[in-house]
This record gives sequence, C-alpha cells and structure tokens, in this order.
Amino acid sequence: MSARWAWLDGAWLPFAEARVPITDRGYLFADAVYEVTAVLDGRLVDGASHLARLARSAGEVGIPLPLDLPAIAAIERELVARDGLGEGVVYLQLTRGAAERDFLVPDGLAPSLLLFTQAKTIIASPAAERGITIATVPDLRWARRDIKSVNLLAQVLAKQAARAAGADDAWLVAEDGRITEAASSTALIVDGDGTLVTRPNGHDILPGCTRAALGRLAAADGIAVAERAFTVAEAQAAREAMQSSASAFVLPVVTIDGCPVADGRPGPIARRLRARYIAAARAGELAS
Amino acid sequence: MSARWAWLDGAWLPFAEARVPITDRGYLFADAVYEVTAVLDGRLVDGASHLARLARSAGEVGIPLPLDLPAIAAIERELVARDGLGEGVVYLQLTRGAAERDFLVPDGLAPSLLLFTQAKTIIASPAAERGITIATVPDLRWARRDIKSVNLLAQVLAKQAARAAGADDAWLVAEDGRITEAASSTALIVDGDGTLVTRPNGHDILPGCTRAALGRLAAADGIAVAERAFTVAEAQAAREAMQSSASAFVLPVVTIDGCPVADGRPGPIARRLRARYIAAARAGELAS
Repeated sequence: MSARWAWLDGAWLPFAEARVPITDRGYLFADAVYEVTAVLDGRLVDGASHLARLARSAGEVGIPLPLDLPAIAAIERELVARDGLGEGVVYLQLTRGAAERDFLVPDGLAPSLLLFTQAKTIIASPAAERGITIATVPDLRWARRDIKSVNLLAQVLAKQAARAAGADDAWLVAEDGRITEAASSTALIVDGDGTLVTRPNGHDILPGCTRAALGRLAAADGIAVAERAFTVAEAQAAREAMQSSASAFVLPVVTIDGCPVADGRPGPIARRLRARYIAAARAGELAS
Repeated sequence: MSARWAWLDGAWLPFAEARVPITDRGYLFADAVYEVTAVLDGRLVDGASHLARLARSAGEVGIPLPLDLPAIAAIERELVARDGLGEGVVYLQLTRGAAERDFLVPDGLAPSLLLFTQAKTIIASPAAERGITIATVPDLRWARRDIKSVNLLAQVLAKQAARAAGADDAWLVAEDGRITEAASSTALIVDGDGTLVTRPNGHDILPGCTRAALGRLAAADGIAVAERAFTVAEAQAAREAMQSSASAFVLPVVTIDGCPVADGRPGPIARRLRARYIAAARAGELAS
C-alpha cells in the first residue's frame, strides 16, 4: 500500500500529520474556495475544466492563485502518482492564508494551497446500479452559489436532513418551488419530450463541470438538451431524473420525496450518459 | 510580556504553534460555530449570554458540546489569566470534528473546541470617539443568520467592499431595501421620536448579545426601544445611527453611503449607551 500524501504550500506531508494554523482564514472565516476532480485509471478526468473553475472562484472572491494552473496540474499528477491512486478524487483547497483574526484582509497575505487525494469507487458504484433516492429540502445557501467556496454548512445540513428522511441525497428547492441543484451535484431530468433539462447557470447554482461535459456528450448522441428551471412536481413526473458530479459522474434518481420517478428504476438516458461519460474519460476525450 | 496560549481539545498550546488537522470539518466545510466575548479589566463581559448563544448555535446545527458551559467558562477565565489579558476578546470555535472528507457526518465524531484571546483596545477607541463611516452592500448571506457559524465569506466580502468604498464598515441590505444588520455587528438607529430602533430577531439576523444588554440599559435609562426593520434612507435621515458588537460595544455611525447622519458627529444617545455599557460591564452588572 502506498503512503498517502498531502501537498501544502510547497511541502509534501504525510496525510495524517498535515495541519493548518488555527489562524488560517479557511478555518476561521470559510475564506476559501475548492475543487474536486475525479481520477480514473490513474488519470485526472476533465482536470482543465476544474482548474478553470478554480481560477474563476478565486478571482470572484479576490484570492490570488499562488501558482499558475499548469503548475497546479503538475502537483495534482504528482500527488496521484505518489499516492498510487487508480480511482478516486483529488481535493484542492485554496484559502486566503493565515493571519491574526480580523474580517479585513491584511495587505500582502500569502494564500494557502492544499491538495490531497481520496480513494473512491466510482465505476463499480452500487448507487449507480440501483439508483439513488432523493429528499427535497429548502435551499438555504447564500446568493453566490456560482462560487465554489467552502461555506458548505447549508449543504452539510441538507445532506444530514436527507439522511434523516431515509434518502440517499438532497435536492435543494428555492423559495419559488423550483429545484436549484442537488446538495453537491447538478440536478437533471428528462422531460416528457425526451429532452435533458437542467437549470441555466447563474448566481443560484454552481456551473457544473461534469454537467457541461454531459451536455456535449448528450448533444453528440442526439439527445435534446434544454436549460430551464423545474419544480419538484415536474421532476417527480419526469421520464427520468439524475444528478451529475465530478466524484460520481452520473447517478440515476429513482425516487424523489418517496415518489417513484417513472417506474422507479434507473432510466435509459441516465445509464447511457453515464456510460458515455466513462468512455469519454477513459478515451481521454475530456479536456484534462 | 505574557506568552500567548491556545486551548485546543484539552491541550494548552503556544498560540503560534497551534494547528488543526486538514480534515477538520471547520476547515473543509465551515461546519463550525463560534463566539467572541469581550474582556475588560481582565474579566469576561456578558460571558453567560455568549455561552448560551454558543449552545443554541451548536444545537441548531447538531454539534454536541464537548464540555458543559461552566467548564468552558472556566477555560475562558484560565486563558485570560494565562495570557495576562486586560482588554480584548476571547475567541471560541466549535467544529464538528476531524474526519475523512465527506459531507455526511460520521457517527460518533468527536467535536473540536478551540479558544484563544486577542488583545484589543476597546475603551480608548478612536473609532468610538470620531464615529465610523458605513457603506451599504447587498446582504448575500444564507437563510440562517441566527446561527453564529463560521460561514463568513459573505461578511468578509462585504467588509472588503466597504473598505474599497472608503468606509470603515458595511451595513447589509436585504432585497426589500431594509437593513438586516452590520457585517459583524447589530445596526441601530434613533428615529425622529427619539426611539432606539433595531430589527426584530429572526432567521435573518444574529441575535446580538450586546444589543440585548443595550436594550435593557436603554430602557432603564428612559430611552424608548422598538423593534422594526428600517431602510437605508431611514437610517440616513435618522437622528442617530450606531452599531453594537461584543468586541467594540457601541460605535456611533456618522455617515452612511457618504450621507451624514444628522450633523455627521457621534450622537448623544450612542455616546450615553456606550458609557452606560462600559460602566455596567465594569460594575459586573452584565451577566458573566
């Protein structure tokens, strides 16, 4: 078994011993952004998209990148190699840095960058085989969900609420009754016309990297794709429902708040898109 | 000069060396709550109110307290004594604990409690003497601002935006045009009738400990107190404006978005309430 490493601000540290100062603003203020990128067959999946989104998130909150994106990508690859990771994810967190606690950011603060991997079964996923169950919960998050920040307490509470309701995951519902996204995934449905429907990007959802790739794969496969918000009732009455994320690719949704979607089994388009995504990742067709 | 200590999960550590695991959920998910309590003349100010609010915040997000409140208060007092702190604050952060990164909380996770102090000039404050300037910014925060969590990126960005606008602090404005609160303080005005006005408590603001004490002191001093939301224009046209917080007590507000409040100088009620609060704290009249 390989050792497990963390890369923290230039140092390679044994994962279990890696620590950050108590004055790190990621810890004190959630003043940090992050990315999760899948690893398949020892290679990063869609890595360039995730690094581009990292740069965007960091720019939106004004945290300078300590390294350019190719340098970060090189660390990701070295980390995967050191950890001997075949299948799983690379986690990356960029905080504004460590400083005496004060909301105001001191001039010249050096940002802090952390990377580590997590082994995870993505391909032979029981959840993908049987489909997952969803509980809907109110979307309590802040107004800039397009920024992938570590301000994740609302998502944690949503997932805990879903588990308490006996469901596998949570879909978040805006005040207008429309679904924004899943607690840490994009929510998608296949409507009565066979169109793959997702909410348009904007400040109210994270622009999903996996969703973007799926949209391209679906279009190439002759599946119509539309961007519009949908209600819980529409999702329950849809031909199919599914969610997409970097760490699980595509998971079919089989019930929403206890109501079966169609026949309550994984739908054909979800299965097809999942297979297409895996094939594209393996063929190196996704930007990485 | 005294050494500076941090208390972390039972250990007394030199402040500068204190670190938390990279898997701490406070760092990865902002899955944590906190409190800031003033210290004056080496004594905690209104400490019991802050610990009661800590217990409430922790309960709302389901983080168990690792110690009962009297035991935490004893650590606070020992920390103040060890650090030789005369004037400043005690900072306390309670996170859900350290675990392999996963939104879902593992069973039996041990919470993590951190305390440290910060020296700070509260009484002889230039800001209190001259008053502070405010820029208003949209309130982008999540829907449970009554929970004092470390999901503070919106507040950080609000304070940075205020500084960029040349102001000392930010007041946050809801979509309906009414002020919710200051970025890390309670917002108050004195209206045309001489009534001290603050927004009613609810999910949209933090229930201020200092504000609660001020309300009692104002009433005892014959100042009428009312709870209602007010707009930016009302605040600009008010007889006085001020903000209250544990770490600065009362600060008069002299301009809002460049518009002077009354004659643009600290108002008499703000000055009186500040003096009364300091006197009450020194006399041990505030629960502690």
